[in-house]
Amino acid sequence: MSALIPSWKKWLLTGLEEDGAAFDWTARSLATLRPDSKPTEARLIAKAAGVWAGATGLQALALLSRELGSPLEIGSDLEDGSRITPGQTLCTWKGSARSIVIFERSFINLASYTSGIATQTRAMVDRVRETGMKHPVRITATRKTLPGYRDLAVEATLIGGAHPHRFNLSGGLLLKENHIAAAGSIAAAVKSSRSTIPHLLKIEIEVRNLEELKEAIQAGAEVIMLDNFTPDQIRAAALLKPEGVCFEASGGISLQNLESYLIEGLDVISVGALTHSVKALDLSLLMSGT
Amino acid sequence: MSALIPSWKKWLLTGLEEDGAAFDWTARSLATLRPDSKPTEARLIAKAAGVWAGATGLQALALLSRELGSPLEIGSDLEDGSRITPGQTLCTWKGSARSIVIFERSFINLASYTSGIATQTRAMVDRVRETGMKHPVRITATRKTLPGYRDLAVEATLIGGAHPHRFNLSGGLLLKENHIAAAGSIAAAVKSSRSTIPHLLKIEIEVRNLEELKEAIQAGAEVIMLDNFTPDQIRAAALLKPEGVCFEASGGISLQNLESYLIEGLDVISVGALTHSVKALDLSLLMSGT
Amino acid sequence: MSALIPSWKKWLLTGLEEDGAAFDWTARSLATLRPDSKPTEARLIAKAAGVWAGATGLQALALLSRELGSPLEIGSDLEDGSRITPGQTLCTWKGSARSIVIFERSFINLASYTSGIATQTRAMVDRVRETGMKHPVRITATRKTLPGYRDLAVEATLIGGAHPHRFNLSGGLLLKENHIAAAGSIAAAVKSSRSTIPHLLKIEIEVRNLEELKEAIQAGAEVIMLDNFTPDQIRAAALLKPEGVCFEASGGISLQNLESYLIEGLDVISVGALTHSVKALDLSLLMSGT
Amino acid sequence: MSALIPSWKKWLLTGLEEDGAAFDWTARSLATLRPDSKPTEARLIAKAAGVWAGATGLQALALLSRELGSPLEIGSDLEDGSRITPGQTLCTWKGSARSIVIFERSFINLASYTSGIATQTRAMVDRVRETGMKHPVRITATRKTLPGYRDLAVEATLIGGAHPHRFNLSGGLLLKENHIAAAGSIAAAVKSSRSTIPHLLKIEIEVRNLEELKEAIQAGAEVIMLDNFTPDQIRAAALLKPEGVCFEASGGISLQNLESYLIEGLDVISVGALTHSVKALDLSLLMSGT
Amino acid sequence: MSALIPSWKKWLLTGLEEDGAAFDWTARSLATLRPDSKPTEARLIAKAAGVWAGATGLQALALLSRELGSPLEIGSDLEDGSRITPGQTLCTWKGSARSIVIFERSFINLASYTSGIATQTRAMVDRVRETGMKHPVRITATRKTLPGYRDLAVEATLIGGAHPHRFNLSGGLLLKENHIAAAGSIAAAVKSSRSTIPHLLKIEIEVRNLEELKEAIQAGAEVIMLDNFTPDQIRAAALLKPEGVCFEASGGISLQNLESYLIEGLDVISVGALTHSVKALDLSLLMSGT
Amino acid sequence: MSALIPSWKKWLLTGLEEDGAAFDWTARSLATLRPDSKPTEARLIAKAAGVWAGATGLQALALLSRELGSPLEIGSDLEDGSRITPGQTLCTWKGSARSIVIFERSFINLASYTSGIATQTRAMVDRVRETGMKHPVRITATRKTLPGYRDLAVEATLIGGAHPHRFNLSGGLLLKENHIAAAGSIAAAVKSSRSTIPHLLKIEIEVRNLEELKEAIQAGAEVIMLDNFTPDQIRAAALLKPEGVCFEASGGISLQNLESYLIEGLDVISVGALTHSVKALDLSLLMSGT
Repeated sequence: MSALIPSWKKWLLTGLEEDGAAFDWTARSLATLRPDSKPTEARLIAKAAGVWAGATGLQALALLSRELGSPLEIGSDLEDGSRITPGQTLCTWKGSARSIVIFERSFINLASYTSGIATQTRAMVDRVRETGMKHPVRITATRKTLPGYRDLAVEATLIGGAHPHRFNLSGGLLLKENHIAAAGSIAAAVKSSRSTIPHLLKIEIEVRNLEELKEAIQAGAEVIMLDNFTPDQIRAAALLKPEGVCFEASGGISLQNLESYLIEGLDVISVGALTHSVKALDLSLLMSGT
Repeated sequence: MSALIPSWKKWLLTGLEEDGAAFDWTARSLATLRPDSKPTEARLIAKAAGVWAGATGLQALALLSRELGSPLEIGSDLEDGSRITPGQTLCTWKGSARSIVIFERSFINLASYTSGIATQTRAMVDRVRETGMKHPVRITATRKTLPGYRDLAVEATLIGGAHPHRFNLSGGLLLKENHIAAAGSIAAAVKSSRSTIPHLLKIEIEVRNLEELKEAIQAGAEVIMLDNFTPDQIRAAALLKPEGVCFEASGGISLQNLESYLIEGLDVISVGALTHSVKALDLSLLMSGT
Repeated sequence: MSALIPSWKKWLLTGLEEDGAAFDWTARSLATLRPDSKPTEARLIAKAAGVWAGATGLQALALLSRELGSPLEIGSDLEDGSRITPGQTLCTWKGSARSIVIFERSFINLASYTSGIATQTRAMVDRVRETGMKHPVRITATRKTLPGYRDLAVEATLIGGAHPHRFNLSGGLLLKENHIAAAGSIAAAVKSSRSTIPHLLKIEIEVRNLEELKEAIQAGAEVIMLDNFTPDQIRAAALLKPEGVCFEASGGISLQNLESYLIEGLDVISVGALTHSVKALDLSLLMSGT
Repeated sequence: MSALIPSWKKWLLTGLEEDGAAFDWTARSLATLRPDSKPTEARLIAKAAGVWAGATGLQALALLSRELGSPLEIGSDLEDGSRITPGQTLCTWKGSARSIVIFERSFINLASYTSGIATQTRAMVDRVRETGMKHPVRITATRKTLPGYRDLAVEATLIGGAHPHRFNLSGGLLLKENHIAAAGSIAAAVKSSRSTIPHLLKIEIEVRNLEELKEAIQAGAEVIMLDNFTPDQIRAAALLKPEGVCFEASGGISLQNLESYLIEGLDVISVGALTHSVKALDLSLLMSGT
Repeated sequence: MSALIPSWKKWLLTGLEEDGAAFDWTARSLATLRPDSKPTEARLIAKAAGVWAGATGLQALALLSRELGSPLEIGSDLEDGSRITPGQTLCTWKGSARSIVIFERSFINLASYTSGIATQTRAMVDRVRETGMKHPVRITATRKTLPGYRDLAVEATLIGGAHPHRFNLSGGLLLKENHIAAAGSIAAAVKSSRSTIPHLLKIEIEVRNLEELKEAIQAGAEVIMLDNFTPDQIRAAALLKPEGVCFEASGGISLQNLESYLIEGLDVISVGALTHSVKALDLSLLMSGT
Repeated sequence: MSALIPSWKKWLLTGLEEDGAAFDWTARSLATLRPDSKPTEARLIAKAAGVWAGATGLQALALLSRELGSPLEIGSDLEDGSRITPGQTLCTWKGSARSIVIFERSFINLASYTSGIATQTRAMVDRVRETGMKHPVRITATRKTLPGYRDLAVEATLIGGAHPHRFNLSGGLLLKENHIAAAGSIAAAVKSSRSTIPHLLKIEIEVRNLEELKEAIQAGAEVIMLDNFTPDQIRAAALLKPEGVCFEASGGISLQNLESYLIEGLDVISVGALTHSVKALDLSLLMSGT
């Protein structure tokens, strides 16, 4: 069982209601698409290459359609994270024509979003792999997600091969510019955090230059975010890196410039665009007979 | 009053809860960011050029922050649809540091999404204007939106200058491939629809080639979607266009190839990518003193 | 599958909770009505003539009772829209006595409401049919529905034989008195609408007399609502009716006076009372052995 | 404060969303009805005589409109339960034209429902008063209410002058046919109830004839429902009535036949039609300038 | 069927979401606990003696796990109200390891709460039984329950052997100090209530001393709450008790001092601590192989 | 602003609805407690010593009462975490009598719960302080909270002086018995976790004896939970403790036996009873004039 099933079910149903499916005048004008329509079959087709991130969604679709009284039988053996090619059949849906039509748009809207995220993520992760780094940099997402979609979006990055960052503000500590200003200094910020945060969390702190980096190391930060460092600055930082400390780079890194950031000594690269600027994966549902 | 206020308020609150704001260990470790923190000010800065679509969101933010007991005073005279330039201050927030920090991520995640949509849309609408068509083609969005976000996404396209398409399945009739197959023929589909749909709706039908186009015209369709027609095919279609019928093109049209589709006789171009593949507009909140 | 299943399930559960079913002291005082009660059977009986509009509700009941762990097996072959006679058994429920008792009131409260609407609607539709008009007037509902019940209420009118009007404000355009005043004139209102509304919508405008009717025709309105016109005024209006324009009458039309409004040239009559003043159809559940 | 405010606010907002107010194409086509429209005023007019039951709704409307950022200032000194006459101005709304238009339909749909119930109830209560009974019969509603609307519906009957019955199954005990059958006899049902129900509740039992009435009296029931008794049967029952026992009549009693049921010795008459068959009170909102 | 199933399902799912089960980093780091994990079995063990109140919860768990796509097969023949001993196996769960782990904490958090309440209640009820009173005092809960948990908490007291009090403010009348002050006198409060409350309710009134008790009897109250009376005062009160009136004691009564309150003539003792100060029953889930 | 305001508001409203406040027959029978009642004042009194944890709740109460149209003006300068003594006035409420009565029970039910938790926690924290340990042990709560109440319960422990543990499963890693069994060994579990979990989290692992403790140290765990260790075992463990590793004790530790666990070398003690077995703090609301 995936604990994301409730989310997928909620969004599938939300999509259906928001789309006015109950008063779909087009379908209603055609007797064969009415509630008592005959069983038929549809195939979901990829129209572009990418990475599949819709397996849990399909399971949710099967469950939800059963709860609404017109079960879709889903045929699919494609696991999340599988590479897909244009024209590939990703799964089949068997059920009444009406039931298929009702869920088509919601499911595609969701799965093209999650698969789009997984696809973008995989491209970056592959780029890392191709360089053959001794300690391959981890790619992670950020908290830049549309409200309500944090879970599906983050999951899609994991499916794509990213590593997790903190899921939300209660899942990790990250002292940023504002926090340091509020504390007065890097050292003060780290010290204050140490005495109050859960004992299971490391302390991450954001630095803007090598001076601040040294302060952060001195203060005992366990993870240091090199904020908007250029590749050259990162290389300089790497020379200062103590044993056991983790370095994360963030700011303006994309598939286009990723390669120049793949520097030994850097452990993590976090990429906001993975979730805030999503290119949907093109999917299409073909009903048999059309 | 905008009837989108409830949506914005819901998503702002959802974002705040999903992000674990109540147990933000980082903020809690710093006394000056606690609930009783002093009033301060922040400025929202554009880090890229684009079109602003966050005015209703700011109003919702002011309302919600008041309901949660720590009002933010919003300073902004920027109307939705205004062009913005990199570095521009879009608005100011005055309130407790804690209150500002709590809403920062949710608001930016939303406004960078809506403004991103408006920005993409405006680019296409501007392209149309630049051509100086006698009857400028309308750009419209589709139903390809993330479940739950139909309203904010469609609104953002309107802010960007798009015209509306049907909001959902109960807001217009569009006979597609599946429907025609179900009815047996274009003529049968149109006829069946005419007798059942609300008398306020026109009938739109999707055609794949000139043969079907002729059938659709013959059947009396009031709007005809030229599905995946090439520019040449559209030109050929335009020659057949009867008075009072509306022609819509759809399928693979983007900013890159838009120009070749701006053909006299075409009335509407619908573009899925406006809402399914959103590039967030880069926004950043600067707190004073940092 | 009917996309109204989620609505029916929601209301059935709401009814059950609102009615305090979990602490039904009466049932709790009787061992045989407790959760582990023996299977029994009940029959739903019509106590008045009418039109059945509870088929989707029965499907929802079967689904919901299964989700709550005590399935009711519903026996019914009565389709929505069937005429029913006093004393007729509409369906049977098999399951534990406790399960039957728990759902009885909610289901009847809902089905007597929807069937009441269908019954009232059918009476008007039948009246139209009996007159043998060449182009029979369509009967439609309005937006005068209890908040939350728009979908079930409108569906019930369709089951009763009504045609659909716009489902809500995003599903059609209707320029009323206030709008015309805001625009300055009928012509201005129509013109302004034409350039902004979805290209799939016709323009309907409300007129109060023959002068305004002429203006509306002149302005190119595609549908014209004759607001509170007397039968005589409608006859006069019919003489002015251009080809392809649709005329709708509204205001104070009921079963009692319907006949006088059945005038050739009139296309649609919309009736608020169909949904705002509902006479419940009398239904009763008989448990076997009582 | 009325504890029904949350209900009214919920339904007003539900109505607004369900009605697609955010994408009201008609209003959007007219600049003067847009969010930034100028303040104006509207008057709510009664178009029929009746009893007002919208005062709490108006308070909720004022509160909700403020929360949505465009406050309506409500002018009204009409208390719930006041008699109203055709043409009477019930209240005034001041605010932006847009805000007025957005809430118009939802508010009227609700207030014409509650006022309709209050009006029907008052008619029956007045009839009782007019007879000048020594111990005037109480009129009460039943549990025959649309799911979700129990509270507003029951409140409206109280506003109309009805007395309360049990609000739901946990608010009173009523042994009906099914329960008696389950217990084996009237005596057994009463006895079993006595030992299990809350000590603050009386025991009511339904009887179908004088034989059962005698059994119920013998068994010590404190309230006895004379189910579907004719006036003659009620008169016969009244002769058997012990001191301190309460008699309630139920079944097919309406305004039409009420008078014949106003028999000394009868304490309560419960009327399902008060809430299951509601005739909306005709209300209309006039905006100034129209 | 138990009408508490929806509550149990809601809380189980709430617990799962609130606990971040979808991003349980610990489980995710172990392949064998992933969604596709093999079926295994777990046993729920009591680690202390008490009374079981989790049977409905187990039914809800089976239903919910099925809806989430990974059914747990529950083995249990333990009825609610059964005494349990330390080390006893209460039930078995069969399903995927992942599914078991996901529900473990939510279920235990709930069932240890309800069973804790039932256990405390049973201890008091047993104490009453042991004294062999001729008319054993009823133990009842109060309205002192955590918002949202009224139903599960009250049900747990009933499972423990308590009798019901009013479920909420619409389920019984209880005139307290504030109400009497508002009315002016005990007699006025009783009289005012009699004429307005549902005819199915008795009138209970709270008295603080024998003088007030006499007034209450004189006023015709049917139930009298002896508020914070000492055992001696209760004995004195008992001498004044009229036939048919019910006496309830309340205030500071606990298992420790219960015995001194078991006085003939007293009918009911209500105990806030049963639900406001709950000692969880210690439960533990053992997965096979560990 | 506290991000817990939405939670408090939700529960206050839930309590009010669940308690049937809208149909409070008692209050309704007394004119002076009706919606239009005169302003009055009430004082919240502590009836036992403890620690106050209701300040955010009071803020929520003020906000909610305003949203419901009858504002309560709250007078309080008592901060969360303040010690309170029996008889102390904690705050005053000014508003209509009706408004005060409506919120009384919900607020007290909540604040007596949170303050009860804070009180229990403070007792343990004080005990630690009294011993004068060089490195005082942190007291923390666990995940043993009632579904829906995780946030209020954990916050109350922090108010009482506890330190935070992981808020939920996505906020920290803790390898327990089941996880180790699934991985095969302590070393394997730690290794597998290291490569998959967020880089901001430490690894905590549960050990049952000194052998496992050594394995865990060897494997590089950063936090080690000594599960059900006796004080003697903890002392033995302390001798093995490497620099920089954190030791947490858990299992059966309460205020009664806490002292014997306050051993140098131990960093954290987690106590389930703080949240699963809550003794409500006795609070009472006195309305003026009573």
